[in-house]
Amino acid sequence: MLPLRFLRCSLGNTWLSSFSFHTARSIPALSLPFSSHSKLRFGAMAAYSTETAGSLSQRLLFRQLFEKESSTYTYLLADLGHPDKPAVLVDPVDKTVGRDLTLVKELGLRLIYAMNTHVHADHITGTGILKGKMPGVKSIISKASTAKADHVVEHGDKVYFGDLFLEVRATPGHTLGCVTYVTGDGPDQPHPRIAFTGDALLIRGCGRTDFQGGSSCQLYNSVHSQIFTLPKDTLIYPAHDYKGFSVSTVGEEMLYNPRLTKDEETFKSIMENLQLAYPKMMDIAVPANFVCGLQDQSTTA
Amino acid sequence: MLPLRFLRCSLGNTWLSSFSFHTARSIPALSLPFSSHSKLRFGAMAAYSTETAGSLSQRLLFRQLFEKESSTYTYLLADLGHPDKPAVLVDPVDKTVGRDLTLVKELGLRLIYAMNTHVHADHITGTGILKGKMPGVKSIISKASTAKADHVVEHGDKVYFGDLFLEVRATPGHTLGCVTYVTGDGPDQPHPRIAFTGDALLIRGCGRTDFQGGSSCQLYNSVHSQIFTLPKDTLIYPAHDYKGFSVSTVGEEMLYNPRLTKDEETFKSIMENLQLAYPKMMDIAVPANFVCGLQDQSTTA
Repeated sequence: MLPLRFLRCSLGNTWLSSFSFHTARSIPALSLPFSSHSKLRFGAMAAYSTETAGSLSQRLLFRQLFEKESSTYTYLLADLGHPDKPAVLVDPVDKTVGRDLTLVKELGLRLIYAMNTHVHADHITGTGILKGKMPGVKSIISKASTAKADHVVEHGDKVYFGDLFLEVRATPGHTLGCVTYVTGDGPDQPHPRIAFTGDALLIRGCGRTDFQGGSSCQLYNSVHSQIFTLPKDTLIYPAHDYKGFSVSTVGEEMLYNPRLTKDEETFKSIMENLQLAYPKMMDIAVPANFVCGLQDQSTTA
Repeated sequence: MLPLRFLRCSLGNTWLSSFSFHTARSIPALSLPFSSHSKLRFGAMAAYSTETAGSLSQRLLFRQLFEKESSTYTYLLADLGHPDKPAVLVDPVDKTVGRDLTLVKELGLRLIYAMNTHVHADHITGTGILKGKMPGVKSIISKASTAKADHVVEHGDKVYFGDLFLEVRATPGHTLGCVTYVTGDGPDQPHPRIAFTGDALLIRGCGRTDFQGGSSCQLYNSVHSQIFTLPKDTLIYPAHDYKGFSVSTVGEEMLYNPRLTKDEETFKSIMENLQLAYPKMMDIAVPANFVCGLQDQSTTA
């Protein structure tokens, strides 16, 4: 593990959590007063929570959203325990930005980040449109992706929304810049942990490794060192599913993933012989996604 | 509310819960020893749970599964606290039975019931194929549907899987026989409650009311009396979604459902003017679903 670094979304906040850290990066994008008040008001809008009213699991609002054409999952997370209900969208899609923003508004959330797990080749990220429609929203992608964004993150960074955070884990292999975002580890973070694996680990599958700096060797090591080392009850939420699955766990994939349960040589052989077609959206999506969906920027960059 | 009646899946069990009931219906289909041991073994395979190890929320395994062609959601629920991990499938689809049975097997569950919320018009239920592939599985549908099944249920019945149960609420209007299955109310049942609303209440929508004994007046009253009276944090999981939503809550739908938030006259007018096309699968699906997918039975019935 590299030393942990921290990405915060405000300056001058009242920081009540008890994490220790090595390097702090403070980004004055928003000025959200942090607190630890965790009582819920209107409903427990999280998908699941605990039976203890006002407890930590109820802080997390979580929604899984689907874009049918590219079979892409977008995830909405928010800290309901924070007065501003700060929220993030992971892997938004251009075609469903309207739906997502309506939901954000209806749930009374304040969207602060639009985050991508990687530069997608099969759809255009919603990040650019989101930023246009809601100027306060900041885009996030990994530094290793070499794509443009308001904030670039590296392995070990933590992206805070309220008192909850997502830890960044570098999981290259599908692309060079792929990361997995994992909910925090600690008594004041949701349990079980949740891993947004992008295309690194899919449910009973994984992303292809034959373009954009992909490497089957690297992907194998990424999944085994960064995802399969998480607690077995960690929930796996990928960027896509093509068979109608919505969630898995680390424990399940360690037992039943037909590719990643094999030894490295067999895995490499499987990946080298997939004979997949060239992605039909690739020549449009990749250039757009390198500037986080802000296509107009690409002509002036 | 009608008096509650109870549907149990075993005789001679050790019943440790504290529910009182008026009429007990015991069905000797299975002989599962009931107990209240709730420690989990392999992972917390529920979509969400609490941070307290071994607590009640962790008993419920929950999976949402999607069939893309008809945009149908199937739900898998199991009591992980029970040694046999008894499980039910709500609204299985014929085309995805293989996927669902593989998942049931991988998770080490014992599927006991295949339940339908109603006689579907847009796809063929997976119930018949499931029963063929796993003879111990019993089919369930409402008595009001007039469809054939191993067990027919009525408003107020409780369908037990292990120590967890689904309460049957009659919610006619999309069809005459529509029911909503709601997870149990009580300290030893998952919190928040979960309502499987079929086509009665969709996320920001509702099912059509122009065939199969449908009635907009009845649907309006069903939703308001049987679903909107549940706690606001009750999770809404419908049989379909066409916009990529996966879950809502009673509180959200009471505020934002564009149809059901209107007064009854306006709702009726909306439903009368939808001008929807005749469902392309209806003439195949409805006859098959009246015998719970056992098409061969229909020729001999």
